Amino acid sequence: RIDGARLWDSIMEMAKIGPGVAGGNNRQTLTDDDAKGRALFQKWCEAAGLTMGVDEMGTMFATRAGEDPDALPVYMGSHLDTQPTGGKYDGVLGVLGALEAVRTMNDLGIKTKHPIVVVNWTNEEGTRFAPAMLASGVFAGKHDLDWAYDREDHDGKKFGDELKRIGWVGDEKVGARKIHALFELHIEQGPILEAEGKDIGVVTHGQGLRWIECTVTGKESHTGSTPMHMRKNAGRGLALVTELVHEIAMKSQPNAVGAIGHIDVYPNSRNIIPGKVVFTVDMRTHILPKLNAMVAEFEERAPKLCADIGVEFECEIVGQFDPPAFNETCVKAVRSAAERLGYSHMDIVSGAGHDACWINDVAPTAMIMCPCVDGLSHNEAEEISPEWAAAGTDVLLHAVLETAEV
Amino acid sequence: RIDGARLWDSIMEMAKIGPGVAGGNNRQTLTDDDAKGRALFQKWCEAAGLTMGVDEMGTMFATRAGEDPDALPVYMGSHLDTQPTGGKYDGVLGVLGALEAVRTMNDLGIKTKHPIVVVNWTNEEGTRFAPAMLASGVFAGKHDLDWAYDREDHDGKKFGDELKRIGWVGDEKVGARKIHALFELHIEQGPILEAEGKDIGVVTHGQGLRWIECTVTGKESHTGSTPMHMRKNAGRGLALVTELVHEIAMKSQPNAVGAIGHIDVYPNSRNIIPGKVVFTVDMRTHILPKLNAMVAEFEERAPKLCADIGVEFECEIVGQFDPPAFNETCVKAVRSAAERLGYSHMDIVSGAGHDACWINDVAPTAMIMCPCVDGLSHNEAEEISPEWAAAGTDVLLHAVLETAEV
Ligand SMILES: NC(=O)NCCC(=O)O
Ligand SMILES: NC(=O)NCCC(=O)O
Repeated sequence: RIDGARLWDSIMEMAKIGPGVAGGNNRQTLTDDDAKGRALFQKWCEAAGLTMGVDEMGTMFATRAGEDPDALPVYMGSHLDTQPTGGKYDGVLGVLGALEAVRTMNDLGIKTKHPIVVVNWTNEEGTRFAPAMLASGVFAGKHDLDWAYDREDHDGKKFGDELKRIGWVGDEKVGARKIHALFELHIEQGPILEAEGKDIGVVTHGQGLRWIECTVTGKESHTGSTPMHMRKNAGRGLALVTELVHEIAMKSQPNAVGAIGHIDVYPNSRNIIPGKVVFTVDMRTHILPKLNAMVAEFEERAPKLCADIGVEFECEIVGQFDPPAFNETCVKAVRSAAERLGYSHMDIVSGAGHDACWINDVAPTAMIMCPCVDGLSHNEAEEISPEWAAAGTDVLLHAVLETAEV
Repeated sequence: RIDGARLWDSIMEMAKIGPGVAGGNNRQTLTDDDAKGRALFQKWCEAAGLTMGVDEMGTMFATRAGEDPDALPVYMGSHLDTQPTGGKYDGVLGVLGALEAVRTMNDLGIKTKHPIVVVNWTNEEGTRFAPAMLASGVFAGKHDLDWAYDREDHDGKKFGDELKRIGWVGDEKVGARKIHALFELHIEQGPILEAEGKDIGVVTHGQGLRWIECTVTGKESHTGSTPMHMRKNAGRGLALVTELVHEIAMKSQPNAVGAIGHIDVYPNSRNIIPGKVVFTVDMRTHILPKLNAMVAEFEERAPKLCADIGVEFECEIVGQFDPPAFNETCVKAVRSAAERLGYSHMDIVSGAGHDACWINDVAPTAMIMCPCVDGLSHNEAEEISPEWAAAGTDVLLHAVLETAEV
């Protein structure tokens, strides 16, 4: 069993870097606080005797040597970056849980045939630079490195420039590493495990996702002196499309979701009718044909709704992944670890995207979930109990040890 | 007749300060560019032999002496501040047209019984600091000076601090000046004069306005892992209220408008369901009971629409004025000046709010409008012809000369 108190201490220590405004964190990717979080994690890895490698996307790989020089490493980890108003556990539990698993192996003098690597993927959240899971996506060959470097934040700063600025461009080619298996521990970010009273979610599948960036173009003009019949109000396009996304998600129940999280209004002045609104639709379900049908309906109906009120509609997919089905052997390793350790568990579908979803395409992969209070995540009030964190980390340790062959 | 070429040159010279991104201007109130615009105007006033006074709201009053030391001054002017994506004429024509009228009086050696004052009101636009027409509102006793000083911009900077920062806190008590009459020349900002082929709009009334700042509160949570039935999506509240505003304006036709120009979404991340949306509704009509009925219907229905989808709705009036009816003698002076000069003209209702609307409550006031291309304003593409500008300024000169008694 891992040391739950040590794990919790580390999580709380990390949470001091990039504090939010309401008890959570704002440690967005490639900010100065991200750099501080990375430095702390590196210090801890060195203290645990691990050797750090960094790739050209800034992803950190901390290796514990194995006994067989030819055996491929078993990976475990997640991400240390957060949402602008994020919680203390989303991603962090997976990285620091992996570190705690290694510390426990050290304490107990456990040797494994396969090397073990603790990983911190760059820009999982995707808030500052879309899409989410950017570094794992490049690792899995989904995106070009140069394309990733060119991603821009809201201020027009490029991913590549910001990575250089914080000093974390590594020399390893992205995706050059071979992976025997990968395990990611993560909080559920949804309400199911808590409602069912289970300690552990054995993640068998994940939802697929489409991020559709939409631009509605009207004509900016005076809110007072422009007669109603001469208006081209882009804000009304946003309104109609918001309700369309909701309608499509509702009629695709069960197991489908849709919403708009990011909205920019131009020029955003009280007495100017919006001339342009840019926003991103997020649609998900774990059934691929359903996901495609949702997007197809959206792409057919949204332009018509906008045309009917005299505004233009354009859209583009800026993030996407298909629903993953995780590797059966790895999933079994998770389930039997929970079983052996006496934790209650159930099979579950991941509602969120994770780095494991991309890596699943290039190596045997599985995920372990632990409950979070009220299913709340991407909120500073995100909360988990130390017991949940410890149970998930115990299962991570045992699944990894089985796979890495003690 | 005024010198149309000199007027146009001055307008183009002013437009060089705080250029926009698309040919217009971004010279928002109390910015460094506003200070530069003020300095240029001051230089021109001094060159025209005027004496500058500045009040505690930063409003600039440039006086040309009259022959009767006891006669109250006749005022003319408008504002030099612009929208963030504003045109070159909105406000500017009224100030520089007034200056051109004085220059013409100087050229022709005209003496008036009443002194003449050219005025540049601070913060007419209200984009940076709501409400609009702030300084003229304080002048007319609608707002307290301290309340005005406490208005905050989007970054939390206070009006009073910014006025001090740019160095334009004057020593005159606001509203201490007595006014014989005030004339404001302004572009129409709507399509009527151009459509009717008239040179001059004789403004008899104005629309009343209500700015209603609304806050919809939901719960921020993960767009992927939060089941549809657990969501409290504040963005949907915005959508429903956007359409409600449109519906109320449409059923209040003719002569009523409504829209939402300013929207802030929190935390504004692609994969977070909006937890809060703050936006301002702008409703107007020139019939007071209708305006009150529109607002009453809005305040009744908006909270219900939001409650139906599980989000909270709160609102507050952050800007308002009742429909003004301008002074009959002043209006007649405008109409007969247009007549005398041979300009085609028609009576018109102002769609926008103007400083003249507030001053109308404390002194005899009237407005002169000239057409603008396609009725477009609050848009960098706002355009007028030099001929329209000259005609409006001619009428301003003659209405003022009649009132100031040559
Ligand atoms: N786990 C997580 O919140 N990842 C961000 C990508 C997503 O929106 O699902
Ligand atoms: N003239 C003008 O655009 N004034 C700003 C106040 C308003 O929105 O009407």
